[in-house]
Amino acid sequence: MDRGGGPVVNLILIEPGEAGDDGIVSLSGVRARHMVQVLRVTPGHEVRVGLIDGGIGVGTVVAIAEDGRVDLRCRFEAQALPRPPVDLLLALPRPKVLRRLWPQLAALGVGRIVLTNAARVERNYFDTHLLDEAGYRPLLVEGLQQARDTRLPLVSIHRQFRVLVEDDLDTLCPRGPRLVAHPGRETPLAAVVREHPGERVLLAIGPEGGWNDFELRLLEAHGFLRVDMGPRTLRTDTACIALLALLHDALRRA
Amino acid sequence: MDRGGGPVVNLILIEPGEAGDDGIVSLSGVRARHMVQVLRVTPGHEVRVGLIDGGIGVGTVVAIAEDGRVDLRCRFEAQALPRPPVDLLLALPRPKVLRRLWPQLAALGVGRIVLTNAARVERNYFDTHLLDEAGYRPLLVEGLQQARDTRLPLVSIHRQFRVLVEDDLDTLCPRGPRLVAHPGRETPLAAVVREHPGERVLLAIGPEGGWNDFELRLLEAHGFLRVDMGPRTLRTDTACIALLALLHDALRRA
Repeated sequence: MDRGGGPVVNLILIEPGEAGDDGIVSLSGVRARHMVQVLRVTPGHEVRVGLIDGGIGVGTVVAIAEDGRVDLRCRFEAQALPRPPVDLLLALPRPKVLRRLWPQLAALGVGRIVLTNAARVERNYFDTHLLDEAGYRPLLVEGLQQARDTRLPLVSIHRQFRVLVEDDLDTLCPRGPRLVAHPGRETPLAAVVREHPGERVLLAIGPEGGWNDFELRLLEAHGFLRVDMGPRTLRTDTACIALLALLHDALRRA
Repeated sequence: MDRGGGPVVNLILIEPGEAGDDGIVSLSGVRARHMVQVLRVTPGHEVRVGLIDGGIGVGTVVAIAEDGRVDLRCRFEAQALPRPPVDLLLALPRPKVLRRLWPQLAALGVGRIVLTNAARVERNYFDTHLLDEAGYRPLLVEGLQQARDTRLPLVSIHRQFRVLVEDDLDTLCPRGPRLVAHPGRETPLAAVVREHPGERVLLAIGPEGGWNDFELRLLEAHGFLRVDMGPRTLRTDTACIALLALLHDALRRA
């Protein structure tokens, strides 16, 4: 499967507006090229499809136009996939790291991504187009297509950490255990998850250089328990992936 | 701490040849700039240092030259840090991914990195300068300095998968449990680790698109047990980080 180094597509995602009343979806661009050049489909072929925030299903190729456009007749399961049971509160990383993280967060499975300012976040990090929906949505879809998920993470961006934690977080993430990654204390992550069966977990990950004392105290005052990743200090993006992997593993076994 | 987006240095690593008989190390370049511009050291300041493949220690600033050169008097603990108890057998990823992975693998902690060809590895991936020691060593050191480790992973590169697995692997990685990441079967990783206390673990991660049937059978014939990451298919680099995090967590708790 020569993808020319592009993203892997294990599930072709369809936007809710793209399917006509007849169930026919007419695709061009990356998804059409993927079907023609990687999957080498011909009319009659079936491909795995998913409806964004909906169910997975099957698309039958009904026509391939000369310009590369592919028409699919799609049937989706009525039942939407469940939202991943993990939410992420993340101090805004610098744009280069954020760009890399968007697809990986969607692939690992995150229900909600709450991006926040913090003392050690540089102000100009907020200037990136990667915080516009037009900038990040395609990267999240890329991660979902890799991981065969349909559930687009909810995203919100907060410029005032204190207002977020004191006023908004209980609405965004109403209940369930809250964890903050911080060296020096060891709460076994799996034990916390086991004590709250069926509840969503909210994980907070600070900026490079960590949360400052005020931020850490505010988080702890709002129910966050410290979890430790061990003696090695990891880059923010490595820590995000590592902790989400540990959390999902703990949730699968809980 | 404004690092201008550069790598985080939590431990300044010194090459064995850099320390003179008097224990004085004269540093220029990135490490000197880090001390002057980020740590804002002046003579008398102490900084955390480590000797590559040796012990950690303390460096006392004895002079800062006008050209930015910093002289440190270094004392290292005689005891070298232990080698991380995990080795990685990795199908060579494309250069862009490999570049990102080198520092992250060193930061997560890997004793040995065995890079191999596989059916789904493209031949031109072997052309990159990132497979030359001069190309990858600085990236590994970057990861060690992030994670406060001194143990440079051992690296070997193998163009024949079958020769590697049949003839060389038992010498490179003589004993301990062997795991291969592959969807569809669930061997609880933590249980395997618990059954082999104190032994090194060898983890095999395939190319994008996975190992083919021959490769998987050969690995299983040579003692690799399949472990599953759950229902989500991850990119190679995401899977590497996720599985190394799970393994290290299991080893800490074993």
